[in-house]
Amino acid sequence: MLDESAKGVFTIAATPFLPDGALDVASIARMVDFYVERGATGLTILGMMGEAGKLSAEESATVIERVCARAGVPVVVGVSAPGFAAIEALTAVAMDKGAAGVMVAPPGSLKTDAQIVGYFRTVAERLRDVPWVLQDFPLATGVQIDAEVIMKIVEACPTMVMLKHEDWPGLEKISALRKASDAGARRISILCGNAGLFLVEEMARGADGAMTGFAYPEMMRDVVTLMAERDETGAREAFDAYLPLIRYESQPGLGLAVRKYILAKRGAIAHATVRAPGPKLSTAAVAEVETLIARQEARLGRV
Amino acid sequence: MLDESAKGVFTIAATPFLPDGALDVASIARMVDFYVERGATGLTILGMMGEAGKLSAEESATVIERVCARAGVPVVVGVSAPGFAAIEALTAVAMDKGAAGVMVAPPGSLKTDAQIVGYFRTVAERLRDVPWVLQDFPLATGVQIDAEVIMKIVEACPTMVMLKHEDWPGLEKISALRKASDAGARRISILCGNAGLFLVEEMARGADGAMTGFAYPEMMRDVVTLMAERDETGAREAFDAYLPLIRYESQPGLGLAVRKYILAKRGAIAHATVRAPGPKLSTAAVAEVETLIARQEARLGRV
Amino acid sequence: MLDESAKGVFTIAATPFLPDGALDVASIARMVDFYVERGATGLTILGMMGEAGKLSAEESATVIERVCARAGVPVVVGVSAPGFAAIEALTAVAMDKGAAGVMVAPPGSLKTDAQIVGYFRTVAERLRDVPWVLQDFPLATGVQIDAEVIMKIVEACPTMVMLKHEDWPGLEKISALRKASDAGARRISILCGNAGLFLVEEMARGADGAMTGFAYPEMMRDVVTLMAERDETGAREAFDAYLPLIRYESQPGLGLAVRKYILAKRGAIAHATVRAPGPKLSTAAVAEVETLIARQEARLGRV
Amino acid sequence: MLDESAKGVFTIAATPFLPDGALDVASIARMVDFYVERGATGLTILGMMGEAGKLSAEESATVIERVCARAGVPVVVGVSAPGFAAIEALTAVAMDKGAAGVMVAPPGSLKTDAQIVGYFRTVAERLRDVPWVLQDFPLATGVQIDAEVIMKIVEACPTMVMLKHEDWPGLEKISALRKASDAGARRISILCGNAGLFLVEEMARGADGAMTGFAYPEMMRDVVTLMAERDETGAREAFDAYLPLIRYESQPGLGLAVRKYILAKRGAIAHATVRAPGPKLSTAAVAEVETLIARQEARLGRV
Repeated sequence: MLDESAKGVFTIAATPFLPDGALDVASIARMVDFYVERGATGLTILGMMGEAGKLSAEESATVIERVCARAGVPVVVGVSAPGFAAIEALTAVAMDKGAAGVMVAPPGSLKTDAQIVGYFRTVAERLRDVPWVLQDFPLATGVQIDAEVIMKIVEACPTMVMLKHEDWPGLEKISALRKASDAGARRISILCGNAGLFLVEEMARGADGAMTGFAYPEMMRDVVTLMAERDETGAREAFDAYLPLIRYESQPGLGLAVRKYILAKRGAIAHATVRAPGPKLSTAAVAEVETLIARQEARLGRV
Repeated sequence: MLDESAKGVFTIAATPFLPDGALDVASIARMVDFYVERGATGLTILGMMGEAGKLSAEESATVIERVCARAGVPVVVGVSAPGFAAIEALTAVAMDKGAAGVMVAPPGSLKTDAQIVGYFRTVAERLRDVPWVLQDFPLATGVQIDAEVIMKIVEACPTMVMLKHEDWPGLEKISALRKASDAGARRISILCGNAGLFLVEEMARGADGAMTGFAYPEMMRDVVTLMAERDETGAREAFDAYLPLIRYESQPGLGLAVRKYILAKRGAIAHATVRAPGPKLSTAAVAEVETLIARQEARLGRV
Repeated sequence: MLDESAKGVFTIAATPFLPDGALDVASIARMVDFYVERGATGLTILGMMGEAGKLSAEESATVIERVCARAGVPVVVGVSAPGFAAIEALTAVAMDKGAAGVMVAPPGSLKTDAQIVGYFRTVAERLRDVPWVLQDFPLATGVQIDAEVIMKIVEACPTMVMLKHEDWPGLEKISALRKASDAGARRISILCGNAGLFLVEEMARGADGAMTGFAYPEMMRDVVTLMAERDETGAREAFDAYLPLIRYESQPGLGLAVRKYILAKRGAIAHATVRAPGPKLSTAAVAEVETLIARQEARLGRV
Repeated sequence: MLDESAKGVFTIAATPFLPDGALDVASIARMVDFYVERGATGLTILGMMGEAGKLSAEESATVIERVCARAGVPVVVGVSAPGFAAIEALTAVAMDKGAAGVMVAPPGSLKTDAQIVGYFRTVAERLRDVPWVLQDFPLATGVQIDAEVIMKIVEACPTMVMLKHEDWPGLEKISALRKASDAGARRISILCGNAGLFLVEEMARGADGAMTGFAYPEMMRDVVTLMAERDETGAREAFDAYLPLIRYESQPGLGLAVRKYILAKRGAIAHATVRAPGPKLSTAAVAEVETLIARQEARLGRV
């Protein structure tokens, strides 16, 4: 079961599809192996990058079952939905299949601090003893959550054990949360998203690791490990080697197609298919990605 | 099957719940009867006001089945979803159970005219020969669709047979669409939402009827009938008698709780329960609704 | 100077323009007289409906000067701007010309409670001893402010003496604010906007009056007066007589053109011109307005 | 006068303030020199990064006058405003002081293609023969403009000579615009913003240069020059050396404080002050910036 001590790299897993858009069940196991072999200490599935909204309930259950059966590391399942009934139902499936916890993003209708705290209080009540992750991603959800409000949720909800941090800019938020726990509040795990674009600084501010799906999980592993060893210079060198591609993959929407292209190229999944509606890479974009990969490999050869 | 000749009142049906939030299957038949007896010439289910997003796939199927089995009038099923696979799947269920067509709202990610037309072209391709309704509700979806763009969709998609109109302000849009069909474009059915707040003017501009869920369907029936008989003065008198309550019920979010309160009071459903997350009526709000109902009944007694 | 005891009807004044878009200085005095003769106990100028954003600094100063010189009732000046320097500068002009206070809406960039409170704290510091009105209009600003947050501002900022209330739905907010002041917090004046669409209920919940620009200020005068005399039935009757037109004028954007059309027709201003960019009334819309006016006059003749 | 042949680096100039928030007129000349000495072939002032919204009309005029008098390169002046009257007035001031053209961003109220084209048609009519730049920055304005719509504006408005491109992702848009002009449409200048984060790819897709305010204008100069010489590898090397800091400076909101901190450190302006309301750098953020600068200098020493 997930708890506040979680750290390392929880890779946001893609959902593999066949060229015709059907779920590619056969690719799931090797994708899981790919992530774990490259340093994933956990996996997060059915998030936004996992195209969760485009799956049927049956497909979601299949993905959960296959990933949990294979992973050997804790699996977090995204269960965000418009109603609490659906959140509860998907959570039951996830925990039954062996997930370590679930992740919930706030619906875009939440505006004020009180609405946000109220929403997550109800989430916690409904999920009873299931540990959960608060996904804080304002660019996608439209919901801005202050550090102070997160600490209210931490206080009100003992089962909230982790923050998926992807506010942007968000470094001061990490500092504020760590200042609060240094002063006596419960210390939750903070894993960072944002495509990894600020991972060194996030770790320096007090994060416990990464939760993002950059197609080279070894980057997150190396940076997180080096920062844990207090080797910031080494971490920055590792990070900078990947930065041109991290940057390219961080393009909203399009980034998912870039990521799946690279995952397919690296053999993690059989096809780069993004289920409709979704972006496609142009010939020019593919050439740009290939150039960035070639340059990255040359740099990594030198490092 | 739904076609461009549809007119009258397609009531947006509520989804009844028990006080504990479970689906109230037993209330479905009497709710359907309530609507039909008061003038519904069609029903629309699983829309936003039907709390579709809060239902599981099984619950949605149950509602579709029960409503279609009972209605005796055409049933339109809301099938909006983040991915085309889910839209296709729910449409298959709906048509299998006897629906007359489906309704699709644009996802909030669509911005430009080309994106909007492209999205609905794909919808039409995926739904093959199933007739469908375009739900044009910018206040809720954030997607603004010009009359000219609607006409492009009309031209590109022969299976798009109806517009659920709830742009606000939206009267000029109706005039523009009718001008286009007067000039030779395919004439689709236009049924209007917006809680009925502009129904007389909408009919005068060329709408074919109403598609909204005001708790007194007889208002829509009377206004639509009188306007069809070219009795605008009579229609305005009928409308004005209900206007104070229409206005109160049109409050975003809260309106659903008001509507269910009245439907329960009138015996259409057993409980006023809105499934969580959702609004609740305060004591003061209930008193306001009761005052408005009492005054409305007095006015209707006089008319 | 404006203080917490303000009540009655603060009409939101239009800004008159000539057909070519130039400021119509000559119309200002008679427009002021029109409002005051029909019951305005105060005026609010340079708000959103006053097209403030489309005026040059010189034009704003001219409007302030002419209105203040003529009014004989307290004048509130809208001073919202992207930076505090501009807010301070316009406030200085306003107070110098004889305004009773200023009004500030939150910029759309504010999201969290802390950001909102912080913003208005700075506003209060910058304005020193000038009394000010908080404009709470989420549909236009995108900023949602909880009652609890308003009470924090009330506590932190003694110069905040009035709330321009136009949250929608917003009745519970009035009740919450009054509950807070009944329990000992400072009681501010609450004047309501929203085109007057909920004025009776707002007064019943504890508002002190109206601050909106409906083209028949006598409606607000009558409703506010009758509610102050505890004649809710009389107030509802007065209100209902105007409701079809209140509803029509409440259409976002278009409503300003409707309002100016009626003001010009009633002789309050010389021309119905809305400065570009802005909406225009179609022939059909003008006919609708005329029908509504004729029916309203008939009803008022009967009342 | 600005025309379609513009290329190179139009630096987005900061507006310097004294620690108390007053305009720092004395810093303007040396800031202009700083930009021009480091490769600016043009300057853009009073844009979003120039805190235009926080300046009074007098301050804007002062900035325009001082910059134009000093620059010796074409100056583009941001004139976006809620109304056409203000756009016209500021444009008159700018051209009178010697600007080469003006820049206009669409107001957030524009949604549909027709509204966007209509708005810019009116802009062009109002500005008569003044050449202007369309600022396409959806993340900030909320207005998404398709390539096809830009080409409609290009066709309708001969005075629209340049696109400030900062759509994100936006590479396909550049390709589409160049495909259109290759096919015979008028070819406008495209200069790219987005903090420079995609400058190499943008140039490869057909852009003519950069229009952004990264605190090291020599990066833009080097990349643009090398790409013009078809030395993409050299351009990528130059770019990668600056990328960690480009990334850090691209944080929304906070980036302006980072940029001004570096400009002050480099002696371009006397103080890093951002006028209120605006972000401030924490001690931790300053340390991060200093680390990034030190590492950048070490890399540049090696290149």
